[in-house]
Amino acid sequence: MGRWKPGAGDRLREAALSLYMERGFEQTMVADIAERAGVTARTFFRHFADKREVLFDDSSALEEKSLGVLAEVPDTASALDAVAAVLDAVARMVGSDRELARKRQAVIMANADLRERELIKLTSLSAALADRLRHRGVGEIEASLAAETSIAVFRVAFSRWVTATEDQDLPDVMRETLDRLRALAAAG
Amino acid sequence: MGRWKPGAGDRLREAALSLYMERGFEQTMVADIAERAGVTARTFFRHFADKREVLFDDSSALEEKSLGVLAEVPDTASALDAVAAVLDAVARMVGSDRELARKRQAVIMANADLRERELIKLTSLSAALADRLRHRGVGEIEASLAAETSIAVFRVAFSRWVTATEDQDLPDVMRETLDRLRALAAAG
Repeated sequence: MGRWKPGAGDRLREAALSLYMERGFEQTMVADIAERAGVTARTFFRHFADKREVLFDDSSALEEKSLGVLAEVPDTASALDAVAAVLDAVARMVGSDRELARKRQAVIMANADLRERELIKLTSLSAALADRLRHRGVGEIEASLAAETSIAVFRVAFSRWVTATEDQDLPDVMRETLDRLRALAAAG
Repeated sequence: MGRWKPGAGDRLREAALSLYMERGFEQTMVADIAERAGVTARTFFRHFADKREVLFDDSSALEEKSLGVLAEVPDTASALDAVAAVLDAVARMVGSDRELARKRQAVIMANADLRERELIKLTSLSAALADRLRHRGVGEIEASLAAETSIAVFRVAFSRWVTATEDQDLPDVMRETLDRLRALAAAG
């Protein structure tokens, strides 16, 4: 659902993340979130299907963005360069607010169901990427490997960025992590 | 649980996989599995905690084997070579019976909960590998990347092996897939 009423969606997201951190995800009710955000529960449901969606409502935008970027990568680019372009775009999307990302990550890591959901989100993104790479003419195996590798790089880079003590830009961390993977593969 | 009564565990596994394929995982009851294997439900529970464990009871053996192999890799080996040794050992363990593996894979792919469980199993293995690599002195980021990459290679290789029309050895497929990843990273 879009943010049809500017402000309320962001306030609800902030309120939800704070409450999930204070009380735990399970213990937080939609009514609590709405109250903290100063809106009604009905308004909550205009923005999010349920309290889990507050954490995962970027999934389809992320996939759409990734596939859109991939479509614009020149055919001459290598599979890994195509993946690098996708990672850069994704990093720009999810890397705009580190404080929010840090909270979200803490909430997800504290709950097994949410960790599973996050894993599934990334795996489904990987499958979609592999599919598109195949359509670009990348070989079956290389397409799967490049897509799975992009998830590996994303997970490692995101966790570095979120836990770093100093301020860093996620796109930079992402690029550096991919370079490290290249070096690792070259050395091995 | 170990196979304290030789034969019954394997018969139960065969019976369970066949039933999961015929009727679906959800629709199969422990009593059905026991009946097909010609044992009592009580015997089933001496071998497996529940019907899901039939599919995942190798998880701890797999992790133990992986960490054991890693401990024996010489310190001079690169992170990716260490991972290659682990993948080889894992391939030998899970690659002994392709027909069984194919059935297990089909059952898991048909059920969202089982797919999640499989993902979690691999992610937890990756975390354990990364931890041990760090203890070997591999840098924080390289350890995570090597471990995550090993899961990527495993997933791609396993799926290739299980779906291949001709007979192949999983360790060979695993090695070739890792080589392809190296080539991919070098080309990118």
